[in-house]
Amino acid sequence: MTDATPYTPPKVWKWEKESGGRFASINRPIAGPTHDKDLPVGKHPLQLYSLATPNGVKVTVLLEELLAKGIKEAEYDAWLVNISEGDQFSSGFVSVNPNSKIPALMDHSTATPTRVFESGAILLYLAEKFGAFLPSDPAKRPEMLSWLFWQMGSAPYLGGGFGHFYAYAPEKWQYPIDRFAMETKRQLDVLDRRLAETPYVSGDEYTIADMAIWAWYGQLALGRLYEAGEFLDVESYKYVQKWAREIDARPAVKRGRMVNRAFGDPSTQLRERHDAGDFETRTQDKLEPAGES
Amino acid sequence: MTDATPYTPPKVWKWEKESGGRFASINRPIAGPTHDKDLPVGKHPLQLYSLATPNGVKVTVLLEELLAKGIKEAEYDAWLVNISEGDQFSSGFVSVNPNSKIPALMDHSTATPTRVFESGAILLYLAEKFGAFLPSDPAKRPEMLSWLFWQMGSAPYLGGGFGHFYAYAPEKWQYPIDRFAMETKRQLDVLDRRLAETPYVSGDEYTIADMAIWAWYGQLALGRLYEAGEFLDVESYKYVQKWAREIDARPAVKRGRMVNRAFGDPSTQLRERHDAGDFETRTQDKLEPAGES
Repeated sequence: MTDATPYTPPKVWKWEKESGGRFASINRPIAGPTHDKDLPVGKHPLQLYSLATPNGVKVTVLLEELLAKGIKEAEYDAWLVNISEGDQFSSGFVSVNPNSKIPALMDHSTATPTRVFESGAILLYLAEKFGAFLPSDPAKRPEMLSWLFWQMGSAPYLGGGFGHFYAYAPEKWQYPIDRFAMETKRQLDVLDRRLAETPYVSGDEYTIADMAIWAWYGQLALGRLYEAGEFLDVESYKYVQKWAREIDARPAVKRGRMVNRAFGDPSTQLRERHDAGDFETRTQDKLEPAGES
Repeated sequence: MTDATPYTPPKVWKWEKESGGRFASINRPIAGPTHDKDLPVGKHPLQLYSLATPNGVKVTVLLEELLAKGIKEAEYDAWLVNISEGDQFSSGFVSVNPNSKIPALMDHSTATPTRVFESGAILLYLAEKFGAFLPSDPAKRPEMLSWLFWQMGSAPYLGGGFGHFYAYAPEKWQYPIDRFAMETKRQLDVLDRRLAETPYVSGDEYTIADMAIWAWYGQLALGRLYEAGEFLDVESYKYVQKWAREIDARPAVKRGRMVNRAFGDPSTQLRERHDAGDFETRTQDKLEPAGES
């Protein structure tokens, strides 16, 4: 990259549609819908529109954990949003999430239907609605919030930075790979040092902060993102490894990973989920999730 | 960049200390403290350790807004963390924020002192503690949370992506500049379309979501970040412009921007803030903040 032809940015940036590597077709400099299409609505109060990327898995893991706890009001319909076909730019999806990213949630149990977007906001909304997977001691709430927001502000360096340049960009360039690999390793080390002190990120209890962080850094540590396990030496983060494996073994986590899955072994895909019985015909092994753009 | 020498990543990434452009000295692949040093503690219950970057300004704006509302319990000491000198790697700072990023807060008014890190978590913690700058109608809370988390997940593409490659990287490369300029413009358009519908991001009321988003996208629209106003054609986002100027005119926002400011015109810098009277000897005009690494 240091040998590249010198580049002088123009005075005003212009959209060149042909660039962008894998996922180029879904990256745009403008917001808003590209076509008119309503979203489907199923029988349950909670309607999730998503895909089993790490950000999607956070929410389906929480919903399955809530149901496993016996909270029946957390029953939900999960509809597949195929981002490579532009489903996130439909008028229906944009009305639920003007940012055109999965996951997005509609709660029809409120006086007027409530939209929630951004995976971190959805986790906090559902955990507060059902009073679960938050610290039981309110004094621990700030620590949980700190780690939940840490995940939201950190993962773009892992996904949109490292993952993009290591796995998806049209060529391999050293500078951005170095920049984002270094930051990703620092983040893994932040987490490893924390998990050396406490079994879960906000203390003794498994909370939504663990679910958020596990979906990205736990799955990265388990070698499931970007085929980058060896490159980032994920095995060296011993406390992250232990925590990641423990969470991975939870039945609700296994179910959550299957929902809205549209890639990998077909037997691991539950493309839509409308009932707890929908899992029965599926095996839950050998899930190999892809990353994000 | 397409003419660069082909690059094949090694099997396992290694730290090459000499690379990284501006801010290279503060980017590391490992976490934890580099030296032993305690943090100072002043007279107020709230102790802020920060710098007037966009993430720092979010919190000082909220604190000044709380004080302007007559909430005296929000009095605070603000200590300067000089990130280019590595203050964020002191043992004291790491004990408050294991992620070694500003801002970080200690609340000494609780039974045991409470740490809070990540600017979004600090905003939510303080707003909930004082019951202010949240939607007065609880039904609007999910919308506020969605936009607050939107800012946290979006700004890394603006700061760590666009800002880095446009302003700070050792060379200008077209691909990453295009990638992150496109995403930054999309984010500005998301915000512009929202502000065409409602005066503030979560509805009729000015909340912490506006403060969070204003610090990044408002200041970007006002031409204060990365000297990129013309390049990104920020003037074309008319609703963002109107909202940004309105918030910029608030006296508490002007004060918040001065706190922990260690760059630009010396008369706009209040490097430490320990009392409301500390502003009196300072002028509040012509602030020209820098961006982040």
